Amino acid sequence: MPEVATRVAPERGIAALRQLLGDRLSTAMAVRDAHGHGESYHPTQAPDAVAFATTIAEVAEIVRICAAHRLPIVPFGTGTGLEGGTVALHGGVSLDVSGLNRIVAVRPEDMNMTVEAGVTRKTLNTHLRDTGLFFPIDPGADASLGGMAATRASGTNAVRYGTMRENVLGLTVVLADGRVVKTGGQARKSAAGYDLTRLFVGSEGTLGIICEVTLKLYGVPEAMSAAVCSFPTIADAANAVIVTIQSGVPVARIELIDEVQMGAINRHAKLDYKVAPTLFYEFHGTTAGVVEQAEGAQAIASDFGGTDFRWAVKPEDRAKLWQARHDAFYAALALRPGVKGWATDVCVPISRLADCIVETKRDLEASSVLAPIVGHVGDGNFHLTFLVDRDDPAEMAEAHRINDRMVLRALAMGGTCTGEHGIGYGKVDFLQAEHGAGVSVMRDLKRALDPANIMNPGKVLRI
Amino acid sequence: MPEVATRVAPERGIAALRQLLGDRLSTAMAVRDAHGHGESYHPTQAPDAVAFATTIAEVAEIVRICAAHRLPIVPFGTGTGLEGGTVALHGGVSLDVSGLNRIVAVRPEDMNMTVEAGVTRKTLNTHLRDTGLFFPIDPGADASLGGMAATRASGTNAVRYGTMRENVLGLTVVLADGRVVKTGGQARKSAAGYDLTRLFVGSEGTLGIICEVTLKLYGVPEAMSAAVCSFPTIADAANAVIVTIQSGVPVARIELIDEVQMGAINRHAKLDYKVAPTLFYEFHGTTAGVVEQAEGAQAIASDFGGTDFRWAVKPEDRAKLWQARHDAFYAALALRPGVKGWATDVCVPISRLADCIVETKRDLEASSVLAPIVGHVGDGNFHLTFLVDRDDPAEMAEAHRINDRMVLRALAMGGTCTGEHGIGYGKVDFLQAEHGAGVSVMRDLKRALDPANIMNPGKVLRI
Repeated sequence: MPEVATRVAPERGIAALRQLLGDRLSTAMAVRDAHGHGESYHPTQAPDAVAFATTIAEVAEIVRICAAHRLPIVPFGTGTGLEGGTVALHGGVSLDVSGLNRIVAVRPEDMNMTVEAGVTRKTLNTHLRDTGLFFPIDPGADASLGGMAATRASGTNAVRYGTMRENVLGLTVVLADGRVVKTGGQARKSAAGYDLTRLFVGSEGTLGIICEVTLKLYGVPEAMSAAVCSFPTIADAANAVIVTIQSGVPVARIELIDEVQMGAINRHAKLDYKVAPTLFYEFHGTTAGVVEQAEGAQAIASDFGGTDFRWAVKPEDRAKLWQARHDAFYAALALRPGVKGWATDVCVPISRLADCIVETKRDLEASSVLAPIVGHVGDGNFHLTFLVDRDDPAEMAEAHRINDRMVLRALAMGGTCTGEHGIGYGKVDFLQAEHGAGVSVMRDLKRALDPANIMNPGKVLRI
Repeated sequence: MPEVATRVAPERGIAALRQLLGDRLSTAMAVRDAHGHGESYHPTQAPDAVAFATTIAEVAEIVRICAAHRLPIVPFGTGTGLEGGTVALHGGVSLDVSGLNRIVAVRPEDMNMTVEAGVTRKTLNTHLRDTGLFFPIDPGADASLGGMAATRASGTNAVRYGTMRENVLGLTVVLADGRVVKTGGQARKSAAGYDLTRLFVGSEGTLGIICEVTLKLYGVPEAMSAAVCSFPTIADAANAVIVTIQSGVPVARIELIDEVQMGAINRHAKLDYKVAPTLFYEFHGTTAGVVEQAEGAQAIASDFGGTDFRWAVKPEDRAKLWQARHDAFYAALALRPGVKGWATDVCVPISRLADCIVETKRDLEASSVLAPIVGHVGDGNFHLTFLVDRDDPAEMAEAHRINDRMVLRALAMGGTCTGEHGIGYGKVDFLQAEHGAGVSVMRDLKRALDPANIMNPGKVLRI
């Protein structure tokens, strides 16, 4: 398998795509540039063209044309990825699926729904507004469901509701040879054959193009309450999380925000929380159950010096709180206007969370780079957002050094090099460090489904 | 890829295995026969030899020898499978992993543990007894964790805790070429590369031999209570389940037992429940939460004519109740001594559960074959146990007819041909009916990882 798909005749491939798509095939520089990056630090590398598909049949036809001309295909949802998944490393075609934006079916009686890949999570939940149901997975950005499935996204609710891994029931995928395959189904469980759904979830466009997603839905809880609590040190906050999880309190959300990020959030969202290591909680359940959970969490927080337990019970207060949390990345960027954020994440077994965060924080305190910490800490997952000038080699080298140390620290603790951002092309070496022989198996699977290496080449695996 | 692995020189392969294993390689007819069947109706087909491995390195060496001699390998845990997964369709070597029986690590602080594949679920939970933790997945039999992972098993608790799909964090697998691969890890979530764990879970030994399993554990709930309730008709019972699930009552277990099976259970377990369509419930949570759940479920049951709500709160009463449920298969067999049971299962979206059960029951009532119904109905999953004389072609044909109708009915309702038993070799055609083009993808994956088709050939896929 070639490291780079040989673009046999890109111009002819693009001409064939233009014939298929008309003005939904663009080679305008602005459009190509807009599709050649994500939201993180990775420099833009523009595709040769951008194809705007509107149907699954069209996606299949685009893939067939690209396959015939050996044109790399880079799927594109909202461009909000954080590990460079949409960067066109080897040129080719950015396949924009935002036009695949239909709500295919909502089945409240079975608590599931099917959407096309371009539907975003906010659109989806707005659509559900009057059904009493919701979809819990919430990466910070208003990402597309196709992109969320492709990167195995999660977010603040994953500690209670799981990630895309647990919440995708089935997919429609277009493979490198143009085959259209439906995986999974509507049954809540199945022992029928290989779990293709889970194979494509997290494959970052390297095995196929996700076109349709069937998702589990959940009843909006009878009661919800949120709370904010600050701690003397980040170790205290992390230890409160560990004990809360080990105690089995079924928190719906438990988010850590360090003092740097907390200051940024206050400024960005015009809030007045104490500038200290802070936990944001949310509790879901029956009215009595939520009180019980909150009392349990608060008692544990107190044991670790947690003070200023502030409640947000009214829906608008909770919404404001969580919007502030979701905007953490943008709030961090505002700390140093003009720079790009480099968002990285790791995930460790819960018992090592405090160690991993404290050691990482120590690295940061001894460093010149600025990087707020936030985390979906109930899962053992946390993030750094390096605020770096990507044109300054010394700054970038320092960020790399700290990132390397954090990832290798997480791996040494039995963790993973990314809890939810994916590998993209930024963490290919770390995937090797984490999975060793497993990567050779991944490569076998990639070769089986994409022998010409046209599907998002250079991402996840180095061939 | 050959349909049957060509046994180039079985005798020489077996001689090489004997050299490796000494008297842990058996060609005794009794041993071979004991390894040539599961617990269901499939006729015994003995392997040429049985290899008793005790270490992962030994499994890898056995696989290398079998690969060199093109000997099929059929993994064997406890032999309690229900779709003929352990039947040696093409001879070869039954690889018995019951000697891989070490508890590798228990990590209460991270709520996970690692066991070798031959450890059984009861051994595992006995080992956990004093930790305050438990592992919830419970197929009726005392199956091995390796077999449970291989068949993507579930059981009564899956409605609350998920199946093996959700509860395996990582695996150690030996591939067809002898590679030893660790998948997954201890982090609760990861976006690092393809989900190899989920690919091997449910692959029924056709992609590799599962040697080690890392499992999620759960805290033993503060409170548990169980209840039994009988209903006027099976439709009433099924509709009570549908509404309970749709209402979001977080039942830990909700099991349907039809009147035929209920009579069998009463006789087998010396119980005196009413012989009627019945639901067994279990509620887990805080003391107050359990009461709240039980009141919710009871109110719904009453709406559907449920009467005789009988409680089992004391641990020994609950244990007796659930042992009776777990022994349903054996209780059914006792209805017609001497025959084999043919256990089959389907799973449908919850809204279609009553329709699917009622139509299936109608088929049974119009038929000469006897087949009690039980089900993990909270998932939409239910079972028939045909009590058939497998030497009577007319009886077998009738069971096949009813099974075919039930499976196709489930598929037409958006369900799956098996919720938890697996494909084995009994449901290969139904897998095709369910997944169509998806099966061609499964075949591509099988070819990539097992080009000579030596890993449990003839199971899951027809090549």
